[in-house]
Amino acid sequence: MSVYEESLELHEKLQGKIEVVSRAPLATKEDLSLAYTPGVAAACKAIEADYDKSFDLTRRGHMVAVITDGSAVLGLGDIGPAAGMPVMEGKCALFKAFGDVDAFPICVDTHDVDEMVRTIALISKSFGGINLEDIAAPRCFEVEEKLKELVDIPVFHDDQHGTAIVVAAAMINAFKLTGKNIAESTVVVNGCGAAGSAITRLLLAMGWGDVIVCDRMGILDPEDGSLNAAKLEIASITNKKGLRGTLADAMSGADAFIGVSTGGVVNKDMVASMNEGIVFALANPEPEIYPEDALAGGARVVGTGRSDFPNQINNVLVFPGIFKGALAARASEITMDMQVAAAQAIAGLIPEEELTEEHIIVSPMFEGVADAVAQAVMDAC
Amino acid sequence: MSVYEESLELHEKLQGKIEVVSRAPLATKEDLSLAYTPGVAAACKAIEADYDKSFDLTRRGHMVAVITDGSAVLGLGDIGPAAGMPVMEGKCALFKAFGDVDAFPICVDTHDVDEMVRTIALISKSFGGINLEDIAAPRCFEVEEKLKELVDIPVFHDDQHGTAIVVAAAMINAFKLTGKNIAESTVVVNGCGAAGSAITRLLLAMGWGDVIVCDRMGILDPEDGSLNAAKLEIASITNKKGLRGTLADAMSGADAFIGVSTGGVVNKDMVASMNEGIVFALANPEPEIYPEDALAGGARVVGTGRSDFPNQINNVLVFPGIFKGALAARASEITMDMQVAAAQAIAGLIPEEELTEEHIIVSPMFEGVADAVAQAVMDAC
Repeated sequence: MSVYEESLELHEKLQGKIEVVSRAPLATKEDLSLAYTPGVAAACKAIEADYDKSFDLTRRGHMVAVITDGSAVLGLGDIGPAAGMPVMEGKCALFKAFGDVDAFPICVDTHDVDEMVRTIALISKSFGGINLEDIAAPRCFEVEEKLKELVDIPVFHDDQHGTAIVVAAAMINAFKLTGKNIAESTVVVNGCGAAGSAITRLLLAMGWGDVIVCDRMGILDPEDGSLNAAKLEIASITNKKGLRGTLADAMSGADAFIGVSTGGVVNKDMVASMNEGIVFALANPEPEIYPEDALAGGARVVGTGRSDFPNQINNVLVFPGIFKGALAARASEITMDMQVAAAQAIAGLIPEEELTEEHIIVSPMFEGVADAVAQAVMDAC
Repeated sequence: MSVYEESLELHEKLQGKIEVVSRAPLATKEDLSLAYTPGVAAACKAIEADYDKSFDLTRRGHMVAVITDGSAVLGLGDIGPAAGMPVMEGKCALFKAFGDVDAFPICVDTHDVDEMVRTIALISKSFGGINLEDIAAPRCFEVEEKLKELVDIPVFHDDQHGTAIVVAAAMINAFKLTGKNIAESTVVVNGCGAAGSAITRLLLAMGWGDVIVCDRMGILDPEDGSLNAAKLEIASITNKKGLRGTLADAMSGADAFIGVSTGGVVNKDMVASMNEGIVFALANPEPEIYPEDALAGGARVVGTGRSDFPNQINNVLVFPGIFKGALAARASEITMDMQVAAAQAIAGLIPEEELTEEHIIVSPMFEGVADAVAQAVMDAC
């Protein structure tokens, strides 16, 4: 039985991967009078008098909304809100299992940016944080930016920032292991959607020398009139030497490659043309190049998104701890500083002397990741 | 310590009365590959191919949204969405404890009917049913009507229909006990908001002879130009004899009184003027008349909304079972037939020979209520 058949069977059996349970004792009439009427009026009045108390007297202070429009679910594309729900529920289950953060999935049935933003803003007082998920680029950028203006709780598009943070964590350790110099290095990012853009911004903010970003047409060209505004902005802050050409041209001489787009687009020769390259081939399920081929091409370190190869670069290392920390600190946003701190905390989970080519990032099942990330986020807040 | 102080302390301790937990095993990498990527894609594709599967493969088929705008919370009035949350969470806890129905609270931060309706409709594919709660009349009528047009799942404004169903259940048994004739009777309803309107409609649909509805100005007068559309409609289907006057005038000679408005508005003489009256004084916490006074005035049967007097008429007897049945039957709406069946099922929980003046309705803690209601709702569906 394939993993897909087995998973479908599990979904049929479970009838939902999350469940809402009561934390209040409700065995007697007295219990009812405290958890519900008439006693509950006291909590309502306390919040009416002091809005901040909503984070303490209700579940809000522990609760994240996982919200999608179903427009970019896994590699399946725009499958709509109802069909996107199994991924959102899975994410909520992971939030609880890995971070002890309550999360609830909401699918919004519109692709209109303003309607989506307005809908989420109008329900935002029910939550302590908003995790946007699987929204197609470039719409996702606009949704996130506009929503941040409207709400008083953290908004975090995990496909952007969660991915960027875990990639940065792995890159910190890959550079440490290989002795490469961050400030003098060139990193090639293939893919300029949600993940590629955020990875680029975070690496630049953390001091990487240059990033060259490619989309399907090759190296982003700031003079290409067909680029959308999001790509134009990325083009304007990257590629300091003004290179033009294909992905292969970009990779020649580069120190690291990060693939977050299409499987199979990198070959052994392209890896061989790099400067003792670090290769993160994160397309799923088929990576840009399989680890054995990348290593045969001379790659020093290889990571993928898959659990069946060494160095799985998976954002489950990030989102439970990021929100756990942000909720605990009652942050109103997740700043770049908090993201950098999270990346450093994840990298720091492996002592320098334990770093090897096959161990630059801890496993998703490693104990204590969320607590370490949460602490770093709180300290940075 | 008062019930309010004790409740506030409980709320501070609990930090939320609900919690979202995982139903999926997540202890190993293999577990992750089934509950999340890559396996989860199979459930997504199955729903994309057959929308109805969203009710089986996600929690949707067991999940109700408890939604308010915070505009009519308990007797506290318009305290806003965040301050309304403790009541919504309490309701969700009751859904789980009494009906094993998952429920999640959502506070919508608008008082605009169309915006509220649109917001709820856009998130409706995340749920199997929608329980509207504590929305001020007459806005609540419009929200419910418009929402029903837009969504494919049951919409149920509990302050209207839940209250109406439990009142009808108690009234069935009060009439049985007193030997009064339903078709020839006159019932006075004081209050023409959410509860009063729905009670009136349900009693008329179930065969009660006449209902006379009063608001603060006395008996509703269809020629009174100041009435809103909702009250005018109620006026047009009630008060067959065309009475005019005060609440006292309405009660004179009536068989039953149902108070769902303001405490303290009924006195012993008004009860004495009734025809061996049944008195449901449901205002909370102060009833329209206290039971001892109503009995002294000659009332045959008295019920209140309070747990410290006999015959507590509380809609916790209704909503868990109504939604449990509607979800199990995958109903797209909760029809009048389903509501009548629910009222009859609740009434039927007390065998006729066990009916007494102090026992016309089972306690909220009575075992098996939700299952009995759910079965009746499914049979009627």
